[in-house]
Amino acid sequence: MERPRHQGMAKNTYMRWRLPLVCLLWEVAMIVLFGVFVRFGAEADAHWEEEKREMNMTSDIENDFYFRYPSFQDVHVMIFVGFGFLMTFLKRYGFGAVGFNFLLAAFGIQWALLMQGWFHSFKDGKILIGVENLINADFCVGSVCIAFGAILGKTSPIQLLVMTLFQVTLFSVNEYILLNLLHVKDAGGSMTIHTFGAYFGLTVTRILYRPNLEQSKDKQGSVYHSDLFAMIGTLYLWMYWPSFNSAISDHGDAQHRSAINTYCSLAACVLTTMAFSSMLQKKGKLDMVHVQNATLAGGVAVGTSAEMMLTPYGSLIVGSISGIVSTVGYVYFTPFLESRLHIQDTCGIHNLHAMPGLIGGIVGAITAAAATEDVYGKEGFIKVFDFTGVYQMRTPSIQGGFQAAGIVVSLLMAFAGGAIVGGILKLPIWGDAAAENCFEDDVYWEVPEDEESDVYHMHNPDKPASP
Amino acid sequence: MERPRHQGMAKNTYMRWRLPLVCLLWEVAMIVLFGVFVRFGAEADAHWEEEKREMNMTSDIENDFYFRYPSFQDVHVMIFVGFGFLMTFLKRYGFGAVGFNFLLAAFGIQWALLMQGWFHSFKDGKILIGVENLINADFCVGSVCIAFGAILGKTSPIQLLVMTLFQVTLFSVNEYILLNLLHVKDAGGSMTIHTFGAYFGLTVTRILYRPNLEQSKDKQGSVYHSDLFAMIGTLYLWMYWPSFNSAISDHGDAQHRSAINTYCSLAACVLTTMAFSSMLQKKGKLDMVHVQNATLAGGVAVGTSAEMMLTPYGSLIVGSISGIVSTVGYVYFTPFLESRLHIQDTCGIHNLHAMPGLIGGIVGAITAAAATEDVYGKEGFIKVFDFTGVYQMRTPSIQGGFQAAGIVVSLLMAFAGGAIVGGILKLPIWGDAAAENCFEDDVYWEVPEDEESDVYHMHNPDKPASP
Amino acid sequence: MERPRHQGMAKNTYMRWRLPLVCLLWEVAMIVLFGVFVRFGAEADAHWEEEKREMNMTSDIENDFYFRYPSFQDVHVMIFVGFGFLMTFLKRYGFGAVGFNFLLAAFGIQWALLMQGWFHSFKDGKILIGVENLINADFCVGSVCIAFGAILGKTSPIQLLVMTLFQVTLFSVNEYILLNLLHVKDAGGSMTIHTFGAYFGLTVTRILYRPNLEQSKDKQGSVYHSDLFAMIGTLYLWMYWPSFNSAISDHGDAQHRSAINTYCSLAACVLTTMAFSSMLQKKGKLDMVHVQNATLAGGVAVGTSAEMMLTPYGSLIVGSISGIVSTVGYVYFTPFLESRLHIQDTCGIHNLHAMPGLIGGIVGAITAAAATEDVYGKEGFIKVFDFTGVYQMRTPSIQGGFQAAGIVVSLLMAFAGGAIVGGILKLPIWGDAAAENCFEDDVYWEVPEDEESDVYHMHNPDKPASP
Repeated sequence: MERPRHQGMAKNTYMRWRLPLVCLLWEVAMIVLFGVFVRFGAEADAHWEEEKREMNMTSDIENDFYFRYPSFQDVHVMIFVGFGFLMTFLKRYGFGAVGFNFLLAAFGIQWALLMQGWFHSFKDGKILIGVENLINADFCVGSVCIAFGAILGKTSPIQLLVMTLFQVTLFSVNEYILLNLLHVKDAGGSMTIHTFGAYFGLTVTRILYRPNLEQSKDKQGSVYHSDLFAMIGTLYLWMYWPSFNSAISDHGDAQHRSAINTYCSLAACVLTTMAFSSMLQKKGKLDMVHVQNATLAGGVAVGTSAEMMLTPYGSLIVGSISGIVSTVGYVYFTPFLESRLHIQDTCGIHNLHAMPGLIGGIVGAITAAAATEDVYGKEGFIKVFDFTGVYQMRTPSIQGGFQAAGIVVSLLMAFAGGAIVGGILKLPIWGDAAAENCFEDDVYWEVPEDEESDVYHMHNPDKPASP
Repeated sequence: MERPRHQGMAKNTYMRWRLPLVCLLWEVAMIVLFGVFVRFGAEADAHWEEEKREMNMTSDIENDFYFRYPSFQDVHVMIFVGFGFLMTFLKRYGFGAVGFNFLLAAFGIQWALLMQGWFHSFKDGKILIGVENLINADFCVGSVCIAFGAILGKTSPIQLLVMTLFQVTLFSVNEYILLNLLHVKDAGGSMTIHTFGAYFGLTVTRILYRPNLEQSKDKQGSVYHSDLFAMIGTLYLWMYWPSFNSAISDHGDAQHRSAINTYCSLAACVLTTMAFSSMLQKKGKLDMVHVQNATLAGGVAVGTSAEMMLTPYGSLIVGSISGIVSTVGYVYFTPFLESRLHIQDTCGIHNLHAMPGLIGGIVGAITAAAATEDVYGKEGFIKVFDFTGVYQMRTPSIQGGFQAAGIVVSLLMAFAGGAIVGGILKLPIWGDAAAENCFEDDVYWEVPEDEESDVYHMHNPDKPASP
Repeated sequence: MERPRHQGMAKNTYMRWRLPLVCLLWEVAMIVLFGVFVRFGAEADAHWEEEKREMNMTSDIENDFYFRYPSFQDVHVMIFVGFGFLMTFLKRYGFGAVGFNFLLAAFGIQWALLMQGWFHSFKDGKILIGVENLINADFCVGSVCIAFGAILGKTSPIQLLVMTLFQVTLFSVNEYILLNLLHVKDAGGSMTIHTFGAYFGLTVTRILYRPNLEQSKDKQGSVYHSDLFAMIGTLYLWMYWPSFNSAISDHGDAQHRSAINTYCSLAACVLTTMAFSSMLQKKGKLDMVHVQNATLAGGVAVGTSAEMMLTPYGSLIVGSISGIVSTVGYVYFTPFLESRLHIQDTCGIHNLHAMPGLIGGIVGAITAAAATEDVYGKEGFIKVFDFTGVYQMRTPSIQGGFQAAGIVVSLLMAFAGGAIVGGILKLPIWGDAAAENCFEDDVYWEVPEDEESDVYHMHNPDKPASP
C-alpha cells in the first residue's frame, strides 16, 4: 500500500540490519561486563544469614529490600508507564512514544547499573548491587526519558540508543561530581535528573534543529483519545512522585518527610496550573497540555529539598510557584524557544523539567543554607546533611554554596554533553526520518492497516479513500 | 469554528477570571493556614532519632511510614486514577472526568489535612502530620469524588471547588462525631466515606435538578473506547480496595485481616454482578455499566467490618449480596430515581456507594454486636473495638447500637449538608453549562480540533463535514 | 438493529439463564465451602497478640503481611490489569478480554484458596489463610489467564468458568506433586504456572479447533488504539514481574535476589525482542505483537531460578535468549502450529509462556544442579533449597534431576488435563459463538450503538451506513 506521503522520503529509514545490530551489540556488551563485574550485594546474596548476624540484625524485615522495594516499584512505573504514556499525546506517535521509551529505558538501566556501580558500589573489583542500585538505575534512565521528550518524534531508535549510552555515562559522571566531590544532597534529583536531563535534551534538539518541521505540523497535535492516554502517564507520575523523591532517602524520618513534602507540593501545583491555564487562554478554557505536564512541576521542584525540613507550607509555596512558571512556560517560552532559539521541544521539557529543576536546585540550596540545629535537632542536623567525616566542619551556608555549585556543574555538563552527543546524532548514518515523516509511527512500526488508512484519510479529507 | 449547538447557549460558561480567582484564592488560603498550623509529626521530623529512643524503638522499620506507605500509594491511585478513569465512560466528557477529579482532589486533600488535623492531630497549637494523615485526606476526598459522580457533566469547575470546600468540612465534622463522640469503628469508611458521600451527592444533584437534560441525551452514553478507559478505573479501584479498607487499621493482624476480608468480598461480588447483569437484560448480554460499577460494591459493603472478625465466608456473603443489590439498582432504581424523584445520578452512585454503604454500616453494626471474647481473644477483643479508657465498659451489643447510630448521623449530615450546598451551587454565578451542553468537554476544555469535528460529525451524520 | 453478519448465526449464544445459573451456583458453593473450611491464619486472626508473644516477635512489623503485601498488590495488578489489558489488542474484543478475564479470575481465586488450602494450609479441619494464600491464589489463576489467551475470542463465558474450575483443580494437584512430592523449587512458577498453564491452554484450543475461523479473520487484528491499550497490560506485567517472582520466596535475601534477577532478565529481553522483531520483518519495522508479548518472556524464563544464585549476568543471558526464542516463535511457530497442528493460539501463548516456561524449568534445573556451598554459604545452601528433614541428604545434582522431573510432570498434567477439559468444553451446550462471530464483543456484551456501527462500517466501507 504505497501512499503519496512516502514518495517524498529522501532519507533511508530502513532499520532491518542497523537496529538489530546495535541492540544485539549493546546487549552482548552488557552480558560480558555484567559477567566480569556485577554480583549480588550482601543483602541479596545467599550468604545473608551470616551477614545478618554480623550486622547485628534480628529480623529479615531489616533487609534494605523492605525499606525500599515498594518505592522502587512506584519509580519503575513512573519510568515505563509514566514517561511512556505521557508522551502518547501525539495522534500518530503512540507506538513510538511508549515503545521507544521502553527500549531506551530497558537498555539504559543495564548500562546505568554498571556506570553508577563503578562509581558508588565498587568493592574488591566487583559491583555489588541491591534494590537501591535498581532505583538509582531507574533514576538515571529517567533523565534520558526527559531528554527523549525534547526530541520525541524526530529521531530513529538507533539515535535513541546511542544517546542513551552517552547520556547515562555523562549522568553518572555528573552525579559522582555532585554527590561525592561536592557532597551535595539531591535525593529526588532536581539537579542530577531534571536539570541535567532537560538541558541535555534541549541542547541535543537544538543541534538537531529541523528547519522544515512545519511539514509535519498536522501530526504534532493530539486527538481526543490520545490525550486520555497521556493522562494515564501524567497521573502515575503525579501519584508516585512522593515515592520518587523518597526512594533513596535515609531510612525512617527522611523517607517519611520526603513523601509528605512532595505530596503537598504536587497538590498545590495542580491548582496554580489550572488557574493559569484558564487565565492565559483567551476563551478561558483549560488546556490538556498544561494539565498533563505543568501539574508535575511541583514534584520536580522539591526534588532536592523534600528530604530536608522544607515543611508542608514551604512545599505548598514551592509547588504553587512551579505550577505557575511551568504553565507560563508552555504559553510563552516554548514558542519563543522554537522561533528565536531554534529549539524544537516536542513535549515542552523546558517547562516541565528544566525550569522546575532549576527552581528545585535553588530551593534546595536555600533550605540547606537556612538549616539550624534547632530545627533539625543535633543528631538530625548531622544525619540529614551527612556532616560526618571530612565534612563534619561544614556549615549550612557553606553547604548551600555547594548546592548552588551543583546546579552550575549540572548545567555545564548538560550543555557540553548535549552538544557533543547532538553532533554525533547529526551524522547521516542513523536512519532518522525526513521532516515530513516526523511524528509518524508508520516509519518505524508496523501499523494496523485499517485504522491507519482510516485515521489518515479522516485527517486528510482531500485524499481519496481508496488509493 | 462556530457550531450550531453552541448558538443555543444561554448561560455564561466563561471561566477566564472566575476559575483562576477561585483556584488562587483557595491556594493562598491553604499556604497561610499551613504556615500557621501544619508541621511534621514526630515520625517525619528530623528530631526522629531522639524520638525513636524515647519510644523505645530499635529499628527505623518501626516508623509508621513502613506500615502504611504501600497502602497509602494504593489509595492515592484509587482516588486519582480509580475515580478519575471510572468516570471517563462518557463519550465526550473524558477530559472533565479525569481533569476535574484531579482538580478537586488536589484541592480537597489540602483542606482535608487541615480540617481532619484540627480534629484529630492537633497538639500545642499545631497540626502534626504523618503518612496516616495523608491517607485520611485521600479518604475524605474520596467522598467528594463519589459526590462528583452524581453531578458529573452538569457542573462547572468552580462549583466543584465550592462543593469540595463544604463537603470536606462537613465530612470532617461527621467523622469526628462518629469516631470520637460515638466511638464507632469505620476503618474502610462505609459510613463516613460512602454513605455520607453518596447521599450528600444525591441531595446536591436533586437540588440542581435539570428538567431539560434529555437535550444532551446523545452525550450521556459511552463509546467503545471510553468504556475501556473506564475499565482502567474500575480495575484499579477493585484491585486496591483491600489497601483502602486496611490502610488505617491497627498494625498487624487488623491490617492483615481487613485485606483478606475485602479480597474475598470483592471476588464474590464480581460473580453475582455478572449473573444479574445477564439475567436482567432481555437478550442476556452483559452490560459494561454493571461490570464497571457493581463489581466494586463488595469493597464498599465490608468497609466497616473488614477489620473485624467478619471471616472469609462472611465476606463472600456480604460481597454476593452487595453485587446483586447494586446491579438491580442500576436496572430498576436509577430510572426510578430520575423519573419520580428527579434525582439525576450520572454515574449511578446510589447503586455503587449509597446502598452498599448502608449495607456496610449495617453489617458493621451486626458484626460488632456479635463479637465475643472467644472469637477475638481477650486482648484482641479490647484492641479491635478499642474498649479502653472511658469505653472499657462497652459491651458488643451497645457498640452495635452506636454503630447503627453512626449510620443515621451520616445520613442526616448528608441530607442537611447536601441541601445547603446544593442551594449554594444553584446560585447563577458559578458558570455551569446549559442543559444541551452538559456532558461535553468543549465547554470548559480546549478540545483537539480534528478529532472533535470528526467524532462530532461521525455521531451526527446528517451534519455537513466542513461547516 | 439486525445486521447481516448476525443472520448466519447457527449457534445459540443466548446467555440469559445459563450464565447466571453457573455464576450463582459456583458462588453458593464457594460460600458453603468457605463456611465449612476457611478461617483466618494466626497472623490475620484477632488472637495475634497472644500468638505474637508465643512466636517471640517484638514488633507488629514482623507480621508476614508487611513482608508480602506490596508484592501481593503488584501480582494482583498483573492478573487483572496485566493479563486483562494485554488481551485487549483485538479491535472488537476489548470488553471480552478485560471483562471475561475479570470474571474467571474473580471466581478462580476463590476456588484456588480452597484447593491450595486443602493441600498446603490445612490444619485441624480448617484452611488457615493469610497474605501468602492470596498470592498463591492469584498465581494459580494466572495459569488460567494464560490458557485464556489461547482460546481468546472463541469461547463463551460459561466455557471459561468451567475451564477455570477444572484448571484450578489440576493446577493445585500438579503444584502439590511438584512442591511437596518432588520437593521442587519453583517460586516464580516457570513450571507450575507458565508451562502447565500454556500447554493446558494449547491442548484445549487444539481440541476446540475451528476449521472455519478465517471467517472472522478481519476481526483478529488490532487497531491503533487497541494496541495502546494492550501496551498498558504489557508494561504492568513487565514492571511488576520482579514482584511476581519474589512474592513467595523466603523472607530477606531470597526475595531481594529474585527481584534483581528478574529485573535484569526482563531488561535484556526487551533488547533482543526489538532486535529480532526488526530483523525478521522484510521492511525492518518493529511489530507491536512482539513488543507486547516477547518482551515478557524474560520474566517467565527466570521464574524458577530467580531466587537461586542465578546472578545478574546469568539473568541477562536467560532474558536475551528467551526474547529471541519468543520473537522467532511469533514469526515462524505460530503460523506453523495453526496450519499444521491445528492449534489456533489467539494471543501466541506458546511463544510467551510455553517455550519460555520450558526454558525457565531447564534453567532452574541447571542452576540447582550447579549449586555449591561455596556460592550459597553453608546456611544459604540449606535454606534456598530447603534441604532439611527428609531432604537433608539431597545433593544439587539430585535436586536438578527432580527439577527436570517437575517439567515433565507439568507437561503431562497439562496435556492430559487439557484433553479432558477440552473434550468437556466441546459439548454443544455451552453457548459458544459461530466461527464468523468469534472475536466480536457484540455476541455476549451490550456494545454502545453509535461507535459499533461506525467502526463496523468504517472497516467495511462496502456496507451501507444505515441498514
